Amino acid sequence: MNGRITVVGLGPGDAALLPPLARAALLRARAIVGYKGYIGLLEQEVLAGRQVLSTGMTGEVERCNAAIDLARSGVETVVVSSGDAGVYAMAGLVLELVEARGLAQDLDVEVVPGIPALCAAAALLGAPLMHDFAVISLSDLLTPWELILRRVAAAAGADFVLVLYNPRSGRRREHLPGALAAIAAERPETTPVGLVKRAYRPGQEVIVTSLGALDPEAVDMQSIVLVGNSATRLVAGASGPRMLTPRGYAGKYGLSGEDAPAGS
Amino acid sequence: MNGRITVVGLGPGDAALLPPLARAALLRARAIVGYKGYIGLLEQEVLAGRQVLSTGMTGEVERCNAAIDLARSGVETVVVSSGDAGVYAMAGLVLELVEARGLAQDLDVEVVPGIPALCAAAALLGAPLMHDFAVISLSDLLTPWELILRRVAAAAGADFVLVLYNPRSGRRREHLPGALAAIAAERPETTPVGLVKRAYRPGQEVIVTSLGALDPEAVDMQSIVLVGNSATRLVAGASGPRMLTPRGYAGKYGLSGEDAPAGS
Repeated sequence: MNGRITVVGLGPGDAALLPPLARAALLRARAIVGYKGYIGLLEQEVLAGRQVLSTGMTGEVERCNAAIDLARSGVETVVVSSGDAGVYAMAGLVLELVEARGLAQDLDVEVVPGIPALCAAAALLGAPLMHDFAVISLSDLLTPWELILRRVAAAAGADFVLVLYNPRSGRRREHLPGALAAIAAERPETTPVGLVKRAYRPGQEVIVTSLGALDPEAVDMQSIVLVGNSATRLVAGASGPRMLTPRGYAGKYGLSGEDAPAGS
Repeated sequence: MNGRITVVGLGPGDAALLPPLARAALLRARAIVGYKGYIGLLEQEVLAGRQVLSTGMTGEVERCNAAIDLARSGVETVVVSSGDAGVYAMAGLVLELVEARGLAQDLDVEVVPGIPALCAAAALLGAPLMHDFAVISLSDLLTPWELILRRVAAAAGADFVLVLYNPRSGRRREHLPGALAAIAAERPETTPVGLVKRAYRPGQEVIVTSLGALDPEAVDMQSIVLVGNSATRLVAGASGPRMLTPRGYAGKYGLSGEDAPAGS
């Protein structure tokens, strides 16, 4: 083994949601590599005294290759992404490039788990993910739109809660309405929908609405859209309505009746 | 507002994966409520001087009601679960009971996000969740088996990566083979499958195998089973094979060619 590269998800970005294992990986690193928007989430203490390799949103392959070069030369290197490094993020590209360059036996690739955007959004919305859910990116940069739409329709048809990543960009204005229409073919317009922007970051917005009332114009690339299943309902909350997808306790067990084991 | 109840996911259980926000919620609490298996994951420093309300795996409703009673009486109370509190865990039951008891305006319910078991397992397996995935619990305690199987089949048919929670218990020996058969109807036996037991805990096991070779007898209730999609493949790793679901970089962009924006 001639080097190590650690892939770290920064979670929503707030240091309060960065687990100690991720922080320790950053602090032991001599080089930190990542998209400049994510590097910007890091505290000065983490950045100080370290080589920082950062470029704009494009340049991922180049950036990961540079990280691999650094790690090979013996520099302890961390590649950062937001959310969890393993959900639509950098863990895959690092593994892919290490393999393609024939370095699998030379470089140790460690993935440190983090809090994915789907969990950050769910926590702010209430409890929408108490039952089975499907996670789908609406970005068609690397996936044909037909396949994305097929997955949306399949998930809606099998009554999954849906979590939509990358729901909208300036270039792709028609995808979100298309996905919502496919869902609306299977579910009533009253189905609860949550929209979370910039979870746990400055400018955070949490909107609880419905399938029929969601305004696609309110959605941006930094949003997560969560669409409830047939059992999802709104519950009152001290600071506004929240989404709840019940597991069936009230129905099956009653509120003071028998209990059921935990899911996990 | 007459009280606060905070729902905290402990992640895999290792303190190194507990984010500071979750730790702060535990430290400000005067009472900690949870299944004894999860309470046992907490350090003495967190438990010391606090009222601890813990019962066995059954008793969830009773335990949450007791937590609500404590919070109403002005005791700062935390309900803990493993993983993320919002994924098949306690956030929903707390919200449900608070609503049913007409306390939504009196009690502030805060959900602190954590690292879900699906991300812990994925990190140990490599990078299986780089593309759309479906998360399904095979427990039929609160869900009809027919619906679970319909979701498994729909997810397999639409080429989702599958993440199976609660894959097997002593009582439910036939569910996992049934689910695997439904997936095998859509995918070749060579499809990579990952099995992770006790992620980031003593006794951790990480097995990379295939749909045809997975031994259901090796799976227990504390396991997560991850089934790849049609693009998932094994890549060599310094300490054994890893699962990779590529996003398409190598195919679409080449290794030294153009770049693509990040997913999220």
